[in-house]
Amino acid sequence: MSKKNKLRIIPLGGLGEVGKNMMAYEFGNDIIVVDAGIMFPHNDMLGVDYIIPDFEYLLKKADRVRALIITHGHEDHIGAIQHFIEQINVPIYATPLTRGLIEGKLARNDAQHKARFKTIQAGESSNIGVFKVEYFHVSHSIPDAVSLGITTPAGLIVHMSDFKFDHTPVDGWATDFAKLAEFSTRGVDLLLSDSTNAERPGWTPSEKVIGPAFDKVFAEAKGRVIVATFASLISRVQQVADAAVKSGRKMALAGPSMVDNVKIARKLKYLEISDDVIVPLEQALSMQEHKVVLMCTGSQGEPSSIVGRLSAGTNRQFDLKPNDTIVLSSHPIPGNEESVSKTINRLLRRGAKVIDDGVAPIHVSGHASQEEQKLLINIVRPKHFMPIHGELRMLMRHAELAKEVGVEEENIIVVENGQVVELIGNKIQLAERIPGSYIFVDGESIGDIDHDIMKERSQLARNGILLIDISLDKRTGKLLHDPEILTRGFVTSEEAETLLPEVRKRVMKVVNEGKNSEKDIVSTIKSYLHQETKRKPMVFVTLSK
Amino acid sequence: MSKKNKLRIIPLGGLGEVGKNMMAYEFGNDIIVVDAGIMFPHNDMLGVDYIIPDFEYLLKKADRVRALIITHGHEDHIGAIQHFIEQINVPIYATPLTRGLIEGKLARNDAQHKARFKTIQAGESSNIGVFKVEYFHVSHSIPDAVSLGITTPAGLIVHMSDFKFDHTPVDGWATDFAKLAEFSTRGVDLLLSDSTNAERPGWTPSEKVIGPAFDKVFAEAKGRVIVATFASLISRVQQVADAAVKSGRKMALAGPSMVDNVKIARKLKYLEISDDVIVPLEQALSMQEHKVVLMCTGSQGEPSSIVGRLSAGTNRQFDLKPNDTIVLSSHPIPGNEESVSKTINRLLRRGAKVIDDGVAPIHVSGHASQEEQKLLINIVRPKHFMPIHGELRMLMRHAELAKEVGVEEENIIVVENGQVVELIGNKIQLAERIPGSYIFVDGESIGDIDHDIMKERSQLARNGILLIDISLDKRTGKLLHDPEILTRGFVTSEEAETLLPEVRKRVMKVVNEGKNSEKDIVSTIKSYLHQETKRKPMVFVTLSK
Repeated sequence: MSKKNKLRIIPLGGLGEVGKNMMAYEFGNDIIVVDAGIMFPHNDMLGVDYIIPDFEYLLKKADRVRALIITHGHEDHIGAIQHFIEQINVPIYATPLTRGLIEGKLARNDAQHKARFKTIQAGESSNIGVFKVEYFHVSHSIPDAVSLGITTPAGLIVHMSDFKFDHTPVDGWATDFAKLAEFSTRGVDLLLSDSTNAERPGWTPSEKVIGPAFDKVFAEAKGRVIVATFASLISRVQQVADAAVKSGRKMALAGPSMVDNVKIARKLKYLEISDDVIVPLEQALSMQEHKVVLMCTGSQGEPSSIVGRLSAGTNRQFDLKPNDTIVLSSHPIPGNEESVSKTINRLLRRGAKVIDDGVAPIHVSGHASQEEQKLLINIVRPKHFMPIHGELRMLMRHAELAKEVGVEEENIIVVENGQVVELIGNKIQLAERIPGSYIFVDGESIGDIDHDIMKERSQLARNGILLIDISLDKRTGKLLHDPEILTRGFVTSEEAETLLPEVRKRVMKVVNEGKNSEKDIVSTIKSYLHQETKRKPMVFVTLSK
Repeated sequence: MSKKNKLRIIPLGGLGEVGKNMMAYEFGNDIIVVDAGIMFPHNDMLGVDYIIPDFEYLLKKADRVRALIITHGHEDHIGAIQHFIEQINVPIYATPLTRGLIEGKLARNDAQHKARFKTIQAGESSNIGVFKVEYFHVSHSIPDAVSLGITTPAGLIVHMSDFKFDHTPVDGWATDFAKLAEFSTRGVDLLLSDSTNAERPGWTPSEKVIGPAFDKVFAEAKGRVIVATFASLISRVQQVADAAVKSGRKMALAGPSMVDNVKIARKLKYLEISDDVIVPLEQALSMQEHKVVLMCTGSQGEPSSIVGRLSAGTNRQFDLKPNDTIVLSSHPIPGNEESVSKTINRLLRRGAKVIDDGVAPIHVSGHASQEEQKLLINIVRPKHFMPIHGELRMLMRHAELAKEVGVEEENIIVVENGQVVELIGNKIQLAERIPGSYIFVDGESIGDIDHDIMKERSQLARNGILLIDISLDKRTGKLLHDPEILTRGFVTSEEAETLLPEVRKRVMKVVNEGKNSEKDIVSTIKSYLHQETKRKPMVFVTLSK
């Protein structure tokens, strides 16, 4: 088989949701990249703000990269664009709303001038190098989302990014079944599909079910309604606005990303909210409480968000009032359950009424569940199947579903990020693993935090530190003064009062016995501290001679 | 109303599940304490092993404490007994299995001699001071669990600890409905009830559903089956043994607490497993793979557990084999979702088949859901209701359920730990809040870790540390040598190469300008580091003159 017919499929990034944040398709001298999003840090990634995919592989072949295609405007698909185009400045292909949201985000970071866009529309196609990319509409929790049919010399690929089969979506625009059926007729060589909900039986409910739930909450609320969701969950804003109109409330938006996104989506006509429904936040705060709904961020319990600050009583612009109803219109992202739960407890403790998706259907998933995933495979009838967008456990479940609906087991391939897959001679196979992992972003530093640093942070965090400062007489090697000792995160001040003099005594003893190397002192003190407290702080000695 | 008729109800501990780990009832000069368990640390409680309730309040009145009554043998009800009896050595009232499990736990910590026991049986009662305590059986995920009817001069209290209304429990011993009905006839002044599943609609499935699920897994597994659960989930051990017999497998136990608990429960006849079913672990490891089931701990993804070590490839006694099926027979404790998920991904990556409660019904909750909670209230028909065993969000939901089934709103009281409640003149009211919070156990230190230390640890963890060591000439105030700089958890070694020389330069400049106080140096360097990295490590200066 000629090497010329080899399509390489490269999911980039560290462990996590496969190909969600970035996926590359490479054929000969042409590479197209799909999405450039961020991942949110796990609980044990101390001090990390967010994670971007490692695209080192692409940097080496930067001259072959032809396009960055963005499927929709959510953070996990657009959040790393700025970092990407700073290093590989190719045109960004995006639908109008997606483009608007990206531009807004870049503008907030003063980086809008760096981007070149090609606006695309669902139903259109682009020829990019050897690839022909057909964009088709999918319903998701944000309008104007697309998935891709990619015709390559190695075969026809269908790349399903985040989607659901919602027959009654908020914008009335369902997934393009006809296009999927058309691909099927042409013969699909490889289907890649969203595995987010592969562990969830049945069908994901339509966004439509949220309407009546909101209506009920808005009607019953005695005071203000405060709806928290993601700033990029544009469809939810429409639903809140509709409920506001029905209940005779005005809507105000809080938080710069929420304000920006709604402005863009309204301007581009993806949100239909008439001017008299939206009032400035200041005005809303002085209106009668039962005439108001506030929309803000913080549904994931982030301490720095508006809801996080309301729960802690530290929000500047406004505080909770006794009759407030807080609606958390999202589901906790895996790993955030504890933080969301704490936030809810704090809000209740401060007297608010809280409604989450366990109490009323004020949120539905934006991703296809098992029956939809099976339906997709049955419509597309691909020869090969590769589950993407999910952790390994979900991918494997999705692979099982594919097998159930008739894809041959040997034609299903499950990989994690960094594992290159090749489609060659109408066969799918594993190729090499490329180095690459998480790129942690912390402050302004990109990639300056690695797993070693994380490990050190975890050591610091587990038991704290103890510093010993010693000055020795150059000639005699004797102590010039008593050792100074400082601790953080190790013992309470009470405990320190009895423990630290003992540490000092032992340091002096060791030094006076002539064992005055840093190593000797550290090991003596470490074993003493462990014996006394069963804890192992990091011990540092600074020694001046 | 005479002060003499006042019953005080005191849920002890920090925020968390109310009255779950410890609850005190006080009347005049008599205090009885119900349960003494531990809480597991939240993700942001860095370096904490576990948490015990703060019973400072009881220490002051230690001479009035008459009894420690333990409802069942789970860690969150027995884990703090050792700490408790070290300070308040009262008799421990427990049913035979609960007693056995406590004795085993104390023996493992070499503390068995400290405990005095009174063995009780469901159906019996004890007169303890002014209190008459009636023990009655409840079904839960451990045999020999009881709840309490407490007759006090202020009225009849029903204290429902962990329970479910399982009509077909593993041991065939259902909750004592007749006793509940009898209390109801006598007139219950206050019902306290388990709120764990107050957010869960419907009925909790019977433990019986697990049997067929296990049978299927055991029959289909090509190789070994490894079942992970809590060491104290004694009922699950019976179910695994039954499935082992049916599928012609032998069972081996791994891990000291699992081995101990099963030994005790078998000896006391709470487990019916014949001798030929259980084989030593070493023997099991050399048997044919499809003839074996191993039971161990680690269903919560704890890195130090057997399953945690298997997932990381660091288990000493045995390793994963290609045909292994791992059954995680529990549900993630809130806050553990991420860690469980990571463990599952690691096990899959290492080639094991993994079955959790999302794949097959191999676990059911041990706690009553909404319909059971409502049924309980309707059987007992209490005048007053106080939800316990749950976070605030669950308590409030439980309170709503009570209202729905007819308890008067003003007779329902929702409090968190540390809030004393009084029952007086057949009215329920809030009394004072007692100081008290989490007591963190870290290593051997009990209570030596407080929130300040946790805050310092979190600061250390977020951005790491930077140490600067300076020696100045005593006379001239000039630097004796270049400052030494050390960092941990802050920058990679590459980044350090360019950053640290700059830091050194700036320290020298500041010192040479005569601003050689620690404060001056710290503030200069902190602002430099923030400017360069947007991060804020803790900066320490040790200064020798």
